[in-house]
Amino acid sequence: MGRSRKITSQLPVEQVAGNGLLDRRLLLKSGAFFAGAMTTGVAGGIASAAAEPLKVDPWSLTIGAPVPPYATPSRFEAKVVRTVGDPSRPGTMQGRTPHHLLDGMITPAALHFVVARAGAPDIDPDQHKLVIHGMVRQPLVFSYNDLLRYPMESHIRFLECGGNSAPMWSKTPIQANVQALHGLLSCSEWTGVRLSTLLDEAGVDPRATWMIAEGADGVSMQRSIPIAKAMDDAMIVFYQNGERIMPWNGYPMRLFLPGYEGNMNVKWLRRLRLTTEPVMAINESRQYTLLLDSGKAWRFYYPQEVKSFVTKPSPGMTMPSPGYYEITGVSYSGHGRISKVEVSADGGKSWGLAALSGPVLPKAITRFRMPWNWTGAPATVMSRATDEAGNVQPTREQLIAERGAPRNTPPVGAFPMEHVNCISSWAVDAKGEVSHVYV
Amino acid sequence: MGRSRKITSQLPVEQVAGNGLLDRRLLLKSGAFFAGAMTTGVAGGIASAAAEPLKVDPWSLTIGAPVPPYATPSRFEAKVVRTVGDPSRPGTMQGRTPHHLLDGMITPAALHFVVARAGAPDIDPDQHKLVIHGMVRQPLVFSYNDLLRYPMESHIRFLECGGNSAPMWSKTPIQANVQALHGLLSCSEWTGVRLSTLLDEAGVDPRATWMIAEGADGVSMQRSIPIAKAMDDAMIVFYQNGERIMPWNGYPMRLFLPGYEGNMNVKWLRRLRLTTEPVMAINESRQYTLLLDSGKAWRFYYPQEVKSFVTKPSPGMTMPSPGYYEITGVSYSGHGRISKVEVSADGGKSWGLAALSGPVLPKAITRFRMPWNWTGAPATVMSRATDEAGNVQPTREQLIAERGAPRNTPPVGAFPMEHVNCISSWAVDAKGEVSHVYV
Repeated sequence: MGRSRKITSQLPVEQVAGNGLLDRRLLLKSGAFFAGAMTTGVAGGIASAAAEPLKVDPWSLTIGAPVPPYATPSRFEAKVVRTVGDPSRPGTMQGRTPHHLLDGMITPAALHFVVARAGAPDIDPDQHKLVIHGMVRQPLVFSYNDLLRYPMESHIRFLECGGNSAPMWSKTPIQANVQALHGLLSCSEWTGVRLSTLLDEAGVDPRATWMIAEGADGVSMQRSIPIAKAMDDAMIVFYQNGERIMPWNGYPMRLFLPGYEGNMNVKWLRRLRLTTEPVMAINESRQYTLLLDSGKAWRFYYPQEVKSFVTKPSPGMTMPSPGYYEITGVSYSGHGRISKVEVSADGGKSWGLAALSGPVLPKAITRFRMPWNWTGAPATVMSRATDEAGNVQPTREQLIAERGAPRNTPPVGAFPMEHVNCISSWAVDAKGEVSHVYV
Repeated sequence: MGRSRKITSQLPVEQVAGNGLLDRRLLLKSGAFFAGAMTTGVAGGIASAAAEPLKVDPWSLTIGAPVPPYATPSRFEAKVVRTVGDPSRPGTMQGRTPHHLLDGMITPAALHFVVARAGAPDIDPDQHKLVIHGMVRQPLVFSYNDLLRYPMESHIRFLECGGNSAPMWSKTPIQANVQALHGLLSCSEWTGVRLSTLLDEAGVDPRATWMIAEGADGVSMQRSIPIAKAMDDAMIVFYQNGERIMPWNGYPMRLFLPGYEGNMNVKWLRRLRLTTEPVMAINESRQYTLLLDSGKAWRFYYPQEVKSFVTKPSPGMTMPSPGYYEITGVSYSGHGRISKVEVSADGGKSWGLAALSGPVLPKAITRFRMPWNWTGAPATVMSRATDEAGNVQPTREQLIAERGAPRNTPPVGAFPMEHVNCISSWAVDAKGEVSHVYV
């Protein structure tokens, strides 16, 4: 079949920003140019392939694998897995989504991120109950099957750990891939019951201001939710991308608070207590609190703010040769829809508008794409998202100015490193190797 | 924790159609009514739960399962699997999506339907090539990694086998669940390259009218694609719901023709040949052709037409008691977006408008939902979809009138039973048992 094709560095499409960012619409219209610029080097060989039988690959000569009841990926994709924490330290169990190996807006449930302080409990849904009590007119207990009879809703929404991207707080850029830097983020279609339907049925006392959610895992995770959020778009969800929730993501049910930090979306949900005070659990009094240089802290700071990062190219990858590439990545905001993503290939000196892959949904991952003609010279690739509320993703310097400088020895569990949403910068050197840099 | 709650049959919300179909918006606003109608019977028990410790389930007392690199469902969901064909007859390999156990619009890749004449080939993507040749200015060969550098698109789209729902042609209603009746349908987010980008690069001869697509499986599956479709929204896709395509769905790449019958979406794609004649493969000369009573046949009949079916309640289920239920199901059309779905609970005498779960995307599954107060009397539940092109899902009688009566001994592989998109009817008897009926 001859040599593989070469993609040249001469693309006759106008730049929209410095260092080779191209106009996607013009590029896609320019088939003829594109073809002219891309030579196969094997024209004779392919033309003859039409007349002669193709070389037949071994897998075409046999009956393949039978259809399994529940499919798993090809053995050639064995590297597309979550990196997981040390199972001998169950309090720190994690699973990180390999965004550098994925594309699209949906994260497969099998690869959804996890932070689990005591692993996944083995809950029998027929035994599990949900209780709503405290400051309500009528306390209620629901079996799992009762809940499945309520009116359902489905929404594609991101979920992100409040501690995602904490490595960005390091004084020097940590050399790791996007899975290690930003992998505590995923996006699924979630299906369940609007929480307000259940709270209305219980009849919330108008003096109640907080709802304490509790999980049925080994640490009985508790978090305090403002009533306003509980009555807004909060859900109790049962299905993740069409099937029942994975054990590590809260099977058989979890609280889902679109746009709010992951830890509040209590998994294995068993209890909702209406009250007038937050519970001051460790996950809100110490963890998921931002301690500022002043000694003051941001507590009860919930929405994951507007953010984006480039997944291709990204640290650890090598670009094989100069020429055309697509820069792509993910963007999202806990405040609503993404309104635009800008991309730079010259370290922020100039920016071009990326194409957003629809549907652009509120509080969901929106994938962006930007064509790039890499000349082979060193380049620095960045993305900057803006949401429909007008929030603009800050630079790392802006984030530090707001929250204080990185400290080497912060009090355990109280860092200025929660909700890190600053711009990430990936440097491409002349050999095509991609690394993490601060610009 | 007391007895489970009972859901009464007295819901004080106005009907929108006969036999208990309710107004969803009014129902959701009527929290007070709903609560009033639903009694827990355990008020004292729950109220005390606030003061006393809850009964602690055993899974809350231990460290749970560590996070695996690639998650699989809870052992309590072991029944949520595809039903598969007989592996000793590889030519008939199938996997059917269990729609009665799913919810939402996305089908997990692990549960996507499969029809595979020779199983899944074990393709090494580094060895696999795609060739475009025939009536083109410049034949091209692409390595897998070459293709991944092209501009990508992501779209949520359904895929349905042209032979899905063939059991509806039986003279008497087959008693089977929706997985058996309608399980050759799924919906995923597909990511890949617009085919026209590659064809423009190859330079299609204006006299070419057909594109012959060929797979690398053991039967070298071939199908003929009209050039107009190839140049419209056709894609070559690499990712399914974010991760690389499952082996049985075409890993490492397949043709994707939104809205067209599944068999044309050639899996394990290795060759596209531009020509002036269809290839007349068995899958278009005999299978996937509709032989009418007149002896004439519908050949090259591609779009999957407007369709819907109710997934809950559905045959094989039992409704435990009278009261409130949500009727839900899936709708889709190969001609574009769904514009409305009507639901009947009285065998088609009256219809109410169902809520459509957004985003309502073209050529994608749109889930519909309709609240229902089942009185306990026998009922017949149906759904009828209309698409934005104005096509209305036909009754079974209308389909038979158009295509001829069911025959017991059709010529093998040429039935009037491809592209069956008629309305399905599920009867609920006084015991709550659901069965398949013709009305």
